[in-house]
Amino acid sequence: MTELVVDYMQRLGESAREASRVLARASTAQKNQALLATADALDQSRTVLLAANELDMEASRANGLDDAMLDRLALNSARIDEMIEGLKQVAALPDPIGEIRDMHFVPSGIQVGKMRVPLGVIGIIYESRPNVTVEAASLCIKSGNATILRGGSEAIHSNKAIAQCLKEGLAVAGFPATAVQVVETTDRAAVGELITMPNYVDVIVPRGGKGLIERISRDASVPVIKHLDGVCHVYVDQAADAGKAIRIADNAKTQRYAPCNAMETLLIHESQVDAVLRPLLDIYESKQVELRGCEKVCALFADRVKAVTADDWAAEYNAPILAIRIVSSLDEAISHINRYGSQHTDSIVTENFTDARRFLTEVDSSSVMINASTRFADGFEYGLGAEIGISTDKLHARGPVGLLGLTSEKYIVFGDGHVRG
Amino acid sequence: MTELVVDYMQRLGESAREASRVLARASTAQKNQALLATADALDQSRTVLLAANELDMEASRANGLDDAMLDRLALNSARIDEMIEGLKQVAALPDPIGEIRDMHFVPSGIQVGKMRVPLGVIGIIYESRPNVTVEAASLCIKSGNATILRGGSEAIHSNKAIAQCLKEGLAVAGFPATAVQVVETTDRAAVGELITMPNYVDVIVPRGGKGLIERISRDASVPVIKHLDGVCHVYVDQAADAGKAIRIADNAKTQRYAPCNAMETLLIHESQVDAVLRPLLDIYESKQVELRGCEKVCALFADRVKAVTADDWAAEYNAPILAIRIVSSLDEAISHINRYGSQHTDSIVTENFTDARRFLTEVDSSSVMINASTRFADGFEYGLGAEIGISTDKLHARGPVGLLGLTSEKYIVFGDGHVRG
Repeated sequence: MTELVVDYMQRLGESAREASRVLARASTAQKNQALLATADALDQSRTVLLAANELDMEASRANGLDDAMLDRLALNSARIDEMIEGLKQVAALPDPIGEIRDMHFVPSGIQVGKMRVPLGVIGIIYESRPNVTVEAASLCIKSGNATILRGGSEAIHSNKAIAQCLKEGLAVAGFPATAVQVVETTDRAAVGELITMPNYVDVIVPRGGKGLIERISRDASVPVIKHLDGVCHVYVDQAADAGKAIRIADNAKTQRYAPCNAMETLLIHESQVDAVLRPLLDIYESKQVELRGCEKVCALFADRVKAVTADDWAAEYNAPILAIRIVSSLDEAISHINRYGSQHTDSIVTENFTDARRFLTEVDSSSVMINASTRFADGFEYGLGAEIGISTDKLHARGPVGLLGLTSEKYIVFGDGHVRG
Repeated sequence: MTELVVDYMQRLGESAREASRVLARASTAQKNQALLATADALDQSRTVLLAANELDMEASRANGLDDAMLDRLALNSARIDEMIEGLKQVAALPDPIGEIRDMHFVPSGIQVGKMRVPLGVIGIIYESRPNVTVEAASLCIKSGNATILRGGSEAIHSNKAIAQCLKEGLAVAGFPATAVQVVETTDRAAVGELITMPNYVDVIVPRGGKGLIERISRDASVPVIKHLDGVCHVYVDQAADAGKAIRIADNAKTQRYAPCNAMETLLIHESQVDAVLRPLLDIYESKQVELRGCEKVCALFADRVKAVTADDWAAEYNAPILAIRIVSSLDEAISHINRYGSQHTDSIVTENFTDARRFLTEVDSSSVMINASTRFADGFEYGLGAEIGISTDKLHARGPVGLLGLTSEKYIVFGDGHVRG
């Protein structure tokens, strides 16, 4: 059985590699045509899509999936509309491929510069949401990459039906059907194979829970663009404007609790206890946020705040819980963030230029902010027009990853018969 | 024993991480001071360096190292001069760190852009040449990274003596001695540990033979900037200028045989046999280059060319051997390169704009050239001012890697109390 799966995945990989050559040289118009024709196909396949999804929903209900999982899995007319809208938005984005930059003469007389090119073949591994199938495929098509999509087994019927629409869209634009391939086996060995075919797959993007991402990163021999923890901080500096500090610390924690860019630890300068911390506690309490403080916080607010335990500083709650620490200097705040943070997103609230400049330089995170809520760390908010994920790695893509994260640059050289002396 | 090594490497890693914070916020002047003070220390330690090197040379002679290895290992006054000159050149390069670019307003009112930052801690693993110790350390210091250097055991005394000079240079600039650390054990377990400490090491750069690089890439859990094969092609197009074609195909093969950017396979359009291939064969023969041809080449030049075997198209000879194939179209040439090449460096010789444009777009290599010798694929020739290696990967750095390859970009956001709605 596993041998059959290996064989099947190798064939997917080989045909994806071939298709990637076609996509790499495709015109912008051709790629956009594929996206818009897929949108049409989805629109005309609503009945089929909903019927396929109902099969997945029934099986998942029978398997006892919880309500949150079932909600993520469900397709309905509004969600199909969103997929169609998403395809149109990606079609409207500028094409990153082919951009030539920095061509300059060097002393030998050649001209050297760079040209933006697709990565080749992207493997996407994700969980229940079937809309990821369209979203990920559309970004890969636009950036000239072939893609192999491995969704959750609970969404297999929905994903196959969506794949059929993608095939129709690709055909209209004259692309091979193998430009986007959905893995049609639910055998887990397929994932193991997908992440260890460096000949056929150039990068893996896992989307899902931390467990999935850690497992894939550990076992992959193909590079992985990954997002692990989001332990984000807001530091209220000695020179903070109290109004801005309260607004930002409230928004970063409570606007939504689940996202990875929500604040998990509030660091506050000791001079800001009365002006900022006290009113913030009122706000958090009114919103039922559980508060856990360092010794100083507990000493001041014994009745309102629990003591942190050893694990709190590095915890990603994704819930209405907040850790709070009083610090006596900017240095202490920066050290805390670089030690306990996850290099995701951290913000300082300050009116002092030098403190802001130091925070910007010394905090080693993928997004570093001044006087803004950590909740802005997002591809759409940053104007990327799309987001394949957020990377907490330092190599290749860092922070929110849009179309550019699915591309690379090669050197190009123009000469006129030049040889090396 | 292995446990001791693990412990030792963990301590190196932890102190490198700490030192990286100091280097990351260092001024350009401070980094340059460390480089120039190291140059002074080398100049004043000539006797010590030569004595340490003599210990390595004696041991290596006793161990029966071959002449080529011994030559790479040897230090002398001229090579110390070169190390000093190299430090001065790196000090003169522009500092890439801290560059802020693309700051722009997005609809929410925040300003978003990017800032260039060091990667953190770089692990360099290399073989006999002691000059790599200075070269790699200087690039890491300039780019604000801490570094852990693991040279060959045959160069251990030389490397320790050089490390002493680096420590003196770091001290003059007020940097911790742990900013550059030479692994002082020759136990092989040290390498295994270095490449599996993602908490402490951000990227590994192996420099050496293919065996070393493959082993490290396979076993590393830290990202690796690597260079594997250099199977480079020159394609002489139907529309090639014969004079340029001959000059380039000669230079790409014979200017030097060993470098990774030397041509290994010549692809030639069938219309160019008399104008280009015939005179080229004379040149290659006069230089004792062994010629291996496809069936068509053998049919035309049976007495001058051997038949290729199955392995020749993918072979990296690094020697006076050349594979030659006659093709009947640009498509055939591009397919050959994408199938058998190593995505290193490939060049087309042509006067036809459309052929040049297609070759540039469709050949998936880290350097793609028009009317220039593949031998130009080099960080110094490209004007990078330095080269830590050449990457045949697509992610992060592709092609010759200079200072920028040792950096990353983080997002930065400026607001004025902005929160997400």
